[in-house]
Order: sequence, then structure tokens, then C-alpha cells
Amino acid sequence: MPLDPNATTVVSAMRNLPDFAHGLVRDVRVRWALGEIGRPYRTELYEGMQPRPDEYRQWQPFGQIPAFRDERVELFESGAILLYLGQDDERLLPRDERARWRATAWLIAALNSVEPMLMQIVMLDIFYAGKDWAKAARPDVTGLAEQRLKAVSDALGDSEWIAGGFTIADIMLVTVLRNLRHTQIVAAFPNLAAYQARGEARPAFRQALADQAAELGPPIKMGED
Amino acid sequence: MPLDPNATTVVSAMRNLPDFAHGLVRDVRVRWALGEIGRPYRTELYEGMQPRPDEYRQWQPFGQIPAFRDERVELFESGAILLYLGQDDERLLPRDERARWRATAWLIAALNSVEPMLMQIVMLDIFYAGKDWAKAARPDVTGLAEQRLKAVSDALGDSEWIAGGFTIADIMLVTVLRNLRHTQIVAAFPNLAAYQARGEARPAFRQALADQAAELGPPIKMGED
Repeated sequence: MPLDPNATTVVSAMRNLPDFAHGLVRDVRVRWALGEIGRPYRTELYEGMQPRPDEYRQWQPFGQIPAFRDERVELFESGAILLYLGQDDERLLPRDERARWRATAWLIAALNSVEPMLMQIVMLDIFYAGKDWAKAARPDVTGLAEQRLKAVSDALGDSEWIAGGFTIADIMLVTVLRNLRHTQIVAAFPNLAAYQARGEARPAFRQALADQAAELGPPIKMGED
Repeated sequence: MPLDPNATTVVSAMRNLPDFAHGLVRDVRVRWALGEIGRPYRTELYEGMQPRPDEYRQWQPFGQIPAFRDERVELFESGAILLYLGQDDERLLPRDERARWRATAWLIAALNSVEPMLMQIVMLDIFYAGKDWAKAARPDVTGLAEQRLKAVSDALGDSEWIAGGFTIADIMLVTVLRNLRHTQIVAAFPNLAAYQARGEARPAFRQALADQAAELGPPIKMGED
């Protein structure tokens, strides 16, 4: 079991969070990667509904979750943490140089060419749901996201994973796609939907999600006190 | 001079582009990094106002600029290309492990925690400028961008560069900040504005920008034929 209170690898995570965010907080990416290689870690929990303490910003300048540290480095940004974990373990990132850099390109693409467009939909549907302009913006914003997903779908074709064997690029891309779980947008690309399901079926992902959920505690319903 | 028609390092770039995009196309990041280490490269130019050819998507799945290849790898995403160039050259990425990963974290932060929020402003002001909802959305979208810039400003403090010495994280962050050049938003954070100017004053950046401009040709005015 990767979760171990005596581990020297530490990941920041949250407790007490609104239901819409359960299963999406990005420490799940790091837990998943650690699970794939059976590396023990412990968590430091922060209150989801409160600003992070000032000291936390020494570790994570934006106050976001997750941050990471071990005996060697102190890190933030899930993309950087996955690259760090991948560098020494070919179960996460292949040793062959061409394959390694192809996976790295896809990890960065997930973070910069896909996730921002999907997160705009999440912003409109959840964070700005009460704003008049959010409804009017949705067709344009959705159109751009669909263009990006079509490119990913075309590149994936009928491959099992996005860059050869399973890599950190898949951990990133699958968790990015999960942001649209409140919509049918990914379902319109059957090979992407199957790819996401394939990722979510991996034992290390399921364990990561369960461990995250156990620490988060029961979902908080928004609009109640 | 890094630009060399016989170089084996190849970067994709554009010609013929609307004026609002001049100086912002992301091949400037790769040209800048190559210039810092004096590594020769040649470009392959694509028409800015037309869809990329289908073959190009074999190289760059989203049809975006830039893509990169050399004798060893074929790559896309400016973030991945900078990481690749940095791995073997301490003028771009330090050898010390802690420093190296700190710079990597900041490169990823620029791509995933800063650029998406700034690009939303660019989308509203330029791509969606004719939409009624764009004006209504701007205060919310700007507020989020300013929060992120404040975090970067606080982390930078009075340091010269964002992660110790000059690294690829600075190439990324400076070019990300440039996306807001049509606004006064960065100017509200004097240390960030000075940091951006410091980056833009580096000879390798100035050369990269000049080389990009020469290949782009005269800016195309939008709204004319």
C-alpha cells in the first residue's frame, strides 16, 4: 500500500471539499503515479474550503494542491511531479529517448493545449454558473474544446495509450478528460471515452481515487451551511 | 548566428500573420533557447492564415506552431522542446537536482497555472471581441489572472530570475507575460514588469524576435482583404 504514515515522500492534499470537486483534485495524479510504481507516501492535509496558510506558499507559490517533497527535491505542479517520478522509472516514462520525449510532449500537451480549454467549460458551468454571460459564452468555448479533443482523438486512433505504452502522459490526459464528467462532450469521441475508461480501470488509479476520497471526507453540499 | 539553412535542428514557424499575433507566436520561445546556447537551426515555414497541411499533424497533432526535430527526437509543445534543450545544457537548466526541478516546476506553472488565465483575457479582447458576452466576462476573468500574477510577483520578490539563475522557466514565463502586452495588467506588478523587460533585453531574445519577424513578413491588417 503506497499510503504509509512513515514515508519520506510527502504529497499535499485536501480535506472537506464541495462535492463537485471530489475526484478531480490533482493530488490524484500524483497518488496514481506513486501507486503504479508502489512507492510509499504520506499526505499533509489542508482544509479545502479555506485559503492555504501563508507558509504553504513557500512550498506551492499559488497555494494549489498538490505539492510534493522527498529526500531529494521539493516540487509543485502535478506535471513537474509526474516528470520527476518518471525520470527514474520506466513503468512511468520509457528509457528510449524518442519514446520518452514523445510522452513528455503529450504530457505538456495535456496541460497546455487540452486542459485549459476543458477548464473553461468547467469555469462556465460551475464557477460562473450564476453569471448571465456564462450561458452566452458556452457555445464558443465548447467549440474550441471540441476541436482540441478531436485532435487528441485523431492522434490516439485505436491505440491503447497516447504515446506507445502506458506513461505519465496517460495519467495526465485521463485526469484532464475527467474534468468534463458533468457533460457528454468526451462521449462524442468514442475512442477517447474508451481510453479514459481504460485509464480509470487501472488498479493504481482506483486506489488513488479511494485514498483521496477517504482523506477528503464526505462531500460538502454547496448552498448549505 | 543560430539561423542556418543547413542545420539539422528544425523548428516550424509561420509566415503571413495578422498584426495582433506578431511577436507572440511560440516558436519565439524555441528560437530564444537555441540562441542562448548558440545552437544552429533552420525553420520550416507554414502559412499563418491557412489550416496546417494534414501531414503536419503527424508532427504536431494540434496543427500548432512550433514543432521541433533534430537527429535524436521529434517533438511538439514549446514546453517539451525547452525541457529537451535544457536537459543537456546548464545555460538553460542547472545540473544541481534541486535547482533543476525548481526550474522545471516553474516552467510547468507558467504553462498550466499562469498562461491559461492570461490567454482567457486575450481570447475575450481579441478572438471574442465582437461577442456581447465577452465584455461582461472580462472583470471575472481579469480578477483570476491578477490573482495568479500576484502569486508570481510574490514568489519573484526582488530576485532577478524566477528559479535562481536564468533558465528555461524564464523563457517560458517572460513569453507568457508578453501575451498581455495590449493591457496594463502586468504593469500593476512593478517587479513582474521589470522582470519581463529584463528577459526581453537579453540578446538571444531580441535576435529570436527579429528572426521571427523577418520570416513572418509584414503584419496583415485584419478587416482588410
